[in-house]
Amino acid sequence: MQDVLDKEDFQVVKKGITFPEGIKAAGVKCGIRFNKKDLALIYSEKVANAWGTFTTNKFKAAPLMVTEKNLSLSGGKLQAVLINSGIANACTGEKGLKDAWETVSYVSEGLNIDKEYVAVTSTGKIGEFLPMKKIDAGLKEAISKLSISGGTEAAEAILTTDTKKKEIAVSFKLGEQEVKIGGMAKGSGMIHPNMATMLGFISSDIFIQQELLKEALQKVVEKSFNMISVDGDTSTNDMVLLMTNGLAGNKLIDKKDTDYYKFLNALQYVAEYLAKCIAKDGEGATKMIEVEVKNALSLAEAKKVAMAVINSPLVKTAIFGKDPNWGRILAAVGYSGAEVIPDKVDLYLKEKIVENGQPLTFSRQEIHKYLESSDEVKIIIDLKMGKVNATAWGCDLTYDYVKINTKYN
Amino acid sequence: MQDVLDKEDFQVVKKGITFPEGIKAAGVKCGIRFNKKDLALIYSEKVANAWGTFTTNKFKAAPLMVTEKNLSLSGGKLQAVLINSGIANACTGEKGLKDAWETVSYVSEGLNIDKEYVAVTSTGKIGEFLPMKKIDAGLKEAISKLSISGGTEAAEAILTTDTKKKEIAVSFKLGEQEVKIGGMAKGSGMIHPNMATMLGFISSDIFIQQELLKEALQKVVEKSFNMISVDGDTSTNDMVLLMTNGLAGNKLIDKKDTDYYKFLNALQYVAEYLAKCIAKDGEGATKMIEVEVKNALSLAEAKKVAMAVINSPLVKTAIFGKDPNWGRILAAVGYSGAEVIPDKVDLYLKEKIVENGQPLTFSRQEIHKYLESSDEVKIIIDLKMGKVNATAWGCDLTYDYVKINTKYN
Repeated sequence: MQDVLDKEDFQVVKKGITFPEGIKAAGVKCGIRFNKKDLALIYSEKVANAWGTFTTNKFKAAPLMVTEKNLSLSGGKLQAVLINSGIANACTGEKGLKDAWETVSYVSEGLNIDKEYVAVTSTGKIGEFLPMKKIDAGLKEAISKLSISGGTEAAEAILTTDTKKKEIAVSFKLGEQEVKIGGMAKGSGMIHPNMATMLGFISSDIFIQQELLKEALQKVVEKSFNMISVDGDTSTNDMVLLMTNGLAGNKLIDKKDTDYYKFLNALQYVAEYLAKCIAKDGEGATKMIEVEVKNALSLAEAKKVAMAVINSPLVKTAIFGKDPNWGRILAAVGYSGAEVIPDKVDLYLKEKIVENGQPLTFSRQEIHKYLESSDEVKIIIDLKMGKVNATAWGCDLTYDYVKINTKYN
Repeated sequence: MQDVLDKEDFQVVKKGITFPEGIKAAGVKCGIRFNKKDLALIYSEKVANAWGTFTTNKFKAAPLMVTEKNLSLSGGKLQAVLINSGIANACTGEKGLKDAWETVSYVSEGLNIDKEYVAVTSTGKIGEFLPMKKIDAGLKEAISKLSISGGTEAAEAILTTDTKKKEIAVSFKLGEQEVKIGGMAKGSGMIHPNMATMLGFISSDIFIQQELLKEALQKVVEKSFNMISVDGDTSTNDMVLLMTNGLAGNKLIDKKDTDYYKFLNALQYVAEYLAKCIAKDGEGATKMIEVEVKNALSLAEAKKVAMAVINSPLVKTAIFGKDPNWGRILAAVGYSGAEVIPDKVDLYLKEKIVENGQPLTFSRQEIHKYLESSDEVKIIIDLKMGKVNATAWGCDLTYDYVKINTKYN
């Protein structure tokens, strides 16, 4: 079975999380952040099959523990997701956990749904407790405002210092039925004392078995959200959630047939689009950097190389300086920990500038111009060892990164 | 046998690499760098037992391959070390390797010593070939200037954009004999297109078996040069060399007795001093950061945590911003990959500010003042899981780091 279908198999639509049938959302100001939306609610009219991927940070925030627990209790079903920005409810101990469960109760009571169908998450300051009364009041307002036009407000409410909201939607046909996917994300905002929390929410009206949905989510996250890096720091609150409520009315997907791969392909596009939005909107970034590693011995090796290059402060500053500094890129390849044969490596930056580990003659001026004029810089590293490729996304390292992360008080 | 002796067991002396008996050096301008010393020679009157540790980068520079080969051919003996700055002779293929062997021949002929007793190393631009005539001529001058007063000039000649030369010497008694150790290093300079190459050279007149010397070097490097980080990038040219010529006349050290541990202790001081000089002189650094991890389950785990914190851009920018951002520190502990129990971790920054994973009440203003007034900031992380400690050194991330690594053309 083919793994990736053509992009023509789906249409991109300028909508967001509420695009699929039966999905409503709202974004309101509950008063955690000063005069900014800070509470988002996503609601599915029908209980949805769902799954999530969570931070690998050992300091996992309380709401993530609660959401993981609920996904486990409900056997992978959700009906509502509550997200607050401004306070992360991380490093808050027993009280933080109790508060997170309390917000679950608020949502359950407010929407009259089972507690175990509720996911909660938070992003913002670490070590502070949630203002429960504000959340309770804000939630009541959000419930009253739930609508299919509330997607954009929800996408705004989850942001911290992101400079742009991040949302996307696609549709495709399965037989006669139109299937829709919508998504929203937040990236590298910084609220003291916090780090770049990444949140992604994807909804769909596709009818698919929970086990397959879980596998699809894990697969696409590996090739999207897990392949971006702003500064290599992994937050206590990172989370990506997928809910599918089956309202599209397609024939149930219960095996990896063509319908499954059509969905996987569209889902991959959504996840990758949101991930790239996060990379582009990295703190202080002037350019997105895409690193494609070709012909590695395995996916793990390809990823190691791609992530080492995308995380290298020396590569990131060189790109900010618009300099084709191939030496720094090769060095990052060399210390990535992956098996590489230095004398085989080719490197492309606009054109092939390194062949078999040694520099070719090229016009620095021309590549400088390319770097100057491009918002998206593509680096290709061909290891010429195996047949596996991987791509990572990140951004340059700038004065503004230092400024944002220094002068945040 | 005790592992660490008191510092009173040795004296620190304001000298460098030529402090030990029979060690001469010179530093000259051979014309690779504009009007700066760029060629250093270290010479031992007597063939010395020696060992080296080399970069783990897969793109290993030609001179490192040559030096490793010579150490193997000679069974761990050296009599001379030639170091040039300005050009790294990395990513230079067959010709680069031939050039490196050629410089070995120059030294061998010029000093009339066996080829296999010669080490060579380079630091500077990647992908450019060595100017062999300049090196040949410069070497002749260096040989004519070899002297015990040439240590400081050698220490200057190995620098690239380091702001300060880095040298140290110590002496201690073994029985009636005075034993001396001298050392010099270069750190995070940046010459386009290059990365922060770290070079360390340590000489001693101690009489010690080669196998024990090798073990001692590996042990101290693990706790010094390998525990510093300016930006997490590992160069193609990193190298630390130790030569001991036995001229102190002490009784041969051929087992791990008190004499061995006295030497190990003094050697650790020298290596740690040089490593800290490199961290302090990190590109754009305004502060050195020391991260001590206590009570880990193993040394590997302790190191993982210490290196994750010292490498975190978010921690580094927070320290530059003089902010006690404990959340970023805990998050780095959490993603380090080490086993940690979040609810056990204590964190000290001037005073204990986190206990059992949760913030204590402390005066931000007071710790801000401490950060403002300190050139060296100490972070202590107590994992309270085992009994093993590790320390790492680094520096803050500043506007000047970005500037140096962006505007180097």
